[in-house]
Amino acid sequence: MSPSFIHTYVSVDCVVFGFDHENRLNILLAQRHFENVPIERQKKLPGSLILSEEDVDDAAQRVLHELTGIKKMVLKQFKCFADPMRASSNDDIRWMGEEYKHNIDRIITVAYLSLCKIDHKINSTKYDTVDWCPIDKVPLLPFDHNKIISESLIEIRKWIESDFSIIFELLPKRFTIRQLYQLYSALSEKRIDIKNFHKKISSFNYIIPLDEIETNVAHRAARYYKFDAKVYKKNNTKLIK
Amino acid sequence: MSPSFIHTYVSVDCVVFGFDHENRLNILLAQRHFENVPIERQKKLPGSLILSEEDVDDAAQRVLHELTGIKKMVLKQFKCFADPMRASSNDDIRWMGEEYKHNIDRIITVAYLSLCKIDHKINSTKYDTVDWCPIDKVPLLPFDHNKIISESLIEIRKWIESDFSIIFELLPKRFTIRQLYQLYSALSEKRIDIKNFHKKISSFNYIIPLDEIETNVAHRAARYYKFDAKVYKKNNTKLIK
Repeated sequence: MSPSFIHTYVSVDCVVFGFDHENRLNILLAQRHFENVPIERQKKLPGSLILSEEDVDDAAQRVLHELTGIKKMVLKQFKCFADPMRASSNDDIRWMGEEYKHNIDRIITVAYLSLCKIDHKINSTKYDTVDWCPIDKVPLLPFDHNKIISESLIEIRKWIESDFSIIFELLPKRFTIRQLYQLYSALSEKRIDIKNFHKKISSFNYIIPLDEIETNVAHRAARYYKFDAKVYKKNNTKLIK
Repeated sequence: MSPSFIHTYVSVDCVVFGFDHENRLNILLAQRHFENVPIERQKKLPGSLILSEEDVDDAAQRVLHELTGIKKMVLKQFKCFADPMRASSNDDIRWMGEEYKHNIDRIITVAYLSLCKIDHKINSTKYDTVDWCPIDKVPLLPFDHNKIISESLIEIRKWIESDFSIIFELLPKRFTIRQLYQLYSALSEKRIDIKNFHKKISSFNYIIPLDEIETNVAHRAARYYKFDAKVYKKNNTKLIK
């Protein structure tokens, strides 16, 4: 046996995005069980080692289901993280030993993006505590989870750029143009003027105005809209836009 | 030790695209050494197990360098393939045993896309034979390499959709609009009329007409153009196009 090839454990980690009522992107963090470690250092990205007869996509679906109780969530594999040093801190090695009862010294992980309406009830079968955390309040996490989150932000932008319909997974079924604008602004690197945004959006035939307006609001009540997936699909298959 | 977690070898496989003079997409296939197997079954995607102290991206760079002799190539990780049955045929298990001197029964692979100008000299330090193969002439390959190639075609389309500058990696430094059109048509699912294409392209300020035209051609000599990466970068950072 030559010792020079990697022979390793493989995990999946999931970055689940939500959009809160204060117009901030959030992600789901799970609380791990880790004795003798302060509570603020017990958060992590939800994830799991993959099982011996399991494909990675199935492992990610399993993790999301154990995390949220939701059966089918939008899911996108985005990157394999395999830095030889990514799981080499003493704390990380000790935690893996306790969690998996294995002596693990290297682990590669396949990272996934997912999207969730923030009002959806979270019913975890695996974790006691699962919390939304605003993206700019994420604490120091174990392994390279902070790096995975940074890269997931770039990836969610690319995803929406290549398939704008994805943005509606984060909004309520009926939404105002202001909500869409605020979500777009939270995701985009470039500022866009709300008037230009309105103009652009009204040219999209898959964003359908409804006969309903906001109630009980201090400002002028805005119209609600819905997203029509069928119309979107029909018109968006070109390479050059 | 619980037996239920995967503990496995990890490889990288690279799909390198080129665009030939007959307007066909090609990929690079390597010839493996595999005794008692007919020559037509010795082709494979270039790849390698990753080394114990190596990150996956570095492994892919190494594979491309050993394959082509080119030091820096455009590279994009696109998917981890981990079907438990992907390396379970007798031939595949026998070949892995001969090639790596390991007894390997499961292997996951991280697949990469790369692009190469087809006139570039290929100087492999690892393989005796490396050949361009038109995408519609790819033979039956080992493992799930045919599946990886199918998915890479979807991925290269998405890549060009999200970053049109990538298409110019496949063209000569100076090119005609007809060449760009033919490459675009080979990559796109939708037909586009050449007149509309011309119109669209002339609105792109990063495609610069040169003071040179084709020589020695039977048809009317066409103007050459070049791609200006700086101008492109300045104008293409929006989420909505």
